[in-house]
Amino acid sequence: MANESDFLQWLYAQQRASGVVKIPAGDDLAVLNWPGSRDLLLVGIDQVLDGVHFDSRVHSPRDIGRKAINRNLSDCAAMACLPVAAVASVALPRGSSLELAKELYLGMKAAADVFDCAIVGGDTSAWDGKLALTVAIIGKSDGIDPITRSGARPGDGIFVTGALGGSIRGRHLNFIPRVRLAREIAGTGRLTAMIDLSDGLSRDLRQICLASNVTAMIEASKIPIHRDAEKQAKSDDQSAIDHALHDGEDHELLFTADKDFDHAGCVRIGSILSPDAGAAPVEIENDGRRAPLPERGWIARW
Amino acid sequence: MANESDFLQWLYAQQRASGVVKIPAGDDLAVLNWPGSRDLLLVGIDQVLDGVHFDSRVHSPRDIGRKAINRNLSDCAAMACLPVAAVASVALPRGSSLELAKELYLGMKAAADVFDCAIVGGDTSAWDGKLALTVAIIGKSDGIDPITRSGARPGDGIFVTGALGGSIRGRHLNFIPRVRLAREIAGTGRLTAMIDLSDGLSRDLRQICLASNVTAMIEASKIPIHRDAEKQAKSDDQSAIDHALHDGEDHELLFTADKDFDHAGCVRIGSILSPDAGAAPVEIENDGRRAPLPERGWIARW
Repeated sequence: MANESDFLQWLYAQQRASGVVKIPAGDDLAVLNWPGSRDLLLVGIDQVLDGVHFDSRVHSPRDIGRKAINRNLSDCAAMACLPVAAVASVALPRGSSLELAKELYLGMKAAADVFDCAIVGGDTSAWDGKLALTVAIIGKSDGIDPITRSGARPGDGIFVTGALGGSIRGRHLNFIPRVRLAREIAGTGRLTAMIDLSDGLSRDLRQICLASNVTAMIEASKIPIHRDAEKQAKSDDQSAIDHALHDGEDHELLFTADKDFDHAGCVRIGSILSPDAGAAPVEIENDGRRAPLPERGWIARW
Repeated sequence: MANESDFLQWLYAQQRASGVVKIPAGDDLAVLNWPGSRDLLLVGIDQVLDGVHFDSRVHSPRDIGRKAINRNLSDCAAMACLPVAAVASVALPRGSSLELAKELYLGMKAAADVFDCAIVGGDTSAWDGKLALTVAIIGKSDGIDPITRSGARPGDGIFVTGALGGSIRGRHLNFIPRVRLAREIAGTGRLTAMIDLSDGLSRDLRQICLASNVTAMIEASKIPIHRDAEKQAKSDDQSAIDHALHDGEDHELLFTADKDFDHAGCVRIGSILSPDAGAAPVEIENDGRRAPLPERGWIARW
């Protein structure tokens, strides 16, 4: 069955670095050299679709607009760059009110303003389809080398920037992208790899392992579990730790750094191992037992 | 009734220039200053939606992908910048084949390769909705000041770069963006305003007039009429000149320059007048009679 992973694997194989393209598609953002500038240019695009990333029957247009921008700002955080500007397109169901378009924009603007990111362009069309928003974002390195997914080394510690799981209870719509924290921790020069937790810890940690050609071992007892994960566990058949491990859209940062790295708000959850040390790319230790961590996070199947 | 114009008017009023933002949303692309570089950065976004900009039952995925990129490249042409890189998002109807995603990408890549524009990132999701593609593009000024819509002066001539009308017969899908011609003519330093003909001559010329605070007079006998407009006129109740004046998606360039400007492939179709010289923003002279040109081009109503 075709899925996004198969397509992305094919797509990344098409990509080439060049004089302009320092790091092509495959990370949270691509990295370009800009003529005459010491600042690297980072760029990416991310869409939010009705019925997938939000529910227009339930969520307010401001929240939807905010999410569309914040997902992109979170990609900036993942690369430790400073957001500079964004452009947005909106596909509106025919018959939508002018008010809806304005509210979506005001949500986007509110989120962008937090980080002085200018929304400098847009495209609006009506169609006989559902609401879709796409945002492309431009960031700059501003003195800090972009942190990619591919630099994790055996011996590194694995860290997260906050409690995980249960974002579906609301946090997926109103998280604050970790842009400032990313700059702080990346500015230490001790980070080796980073990604934002959009698809779930089990899936996103695997991305770091595959890109870095390493394996990972995390300790169940060290995973910070969000109270939303506890609440969610009471309303379904999954445990709170399962929610923390596999739910998507936490939008905390997952990173690797030397094992003694210590920073307020960052929790060490495991270690990077050599490629042949793990039976699976990611393993989890729970009550002294070690087992492969299945990849169960968010993925688009079509 | 709400329409895109009302929304854009509201949106542009929210925009502010700043140290970073040299020209905010409202032109074909926004223009940013990039730290340490003499090259201005231009950025914009444009979407193509099933049932609006293409028909997935009829058009091939390669053609659809190509159009998604070419619309953005045409925005680069309108500002006389060089395309550098693009990012693309695709919303796929659930159940789509991997082949569809690949074909869309190959269409995008084929169009981008013509101008050495790298496709450096993307986002693919499946949803219970129709096919939608969004492309954001980054360009650089590379020694030529961006040409905006707002510089037209009374006395200037009005020019187009090719024959107009009837693009619905196929050219809307397979036009070649006028990037190279734009660089040639803008490099003369004689252009005062430019836009690409995406919404139709009557509507796009009005955009130049409103942005430049001038009026325009065009001569019906001078409008180059595409043979597709002639063919289309035989199959509906509009004349060929009406198609040339009002059809959208020609993606030729419409520009103003001193009245003696002369360049291969460019046809003078009229003159820019002072703000109070015309009874309407755009007038047309036909067999010695002068009349306001109604604004009938493409516009999204929702």
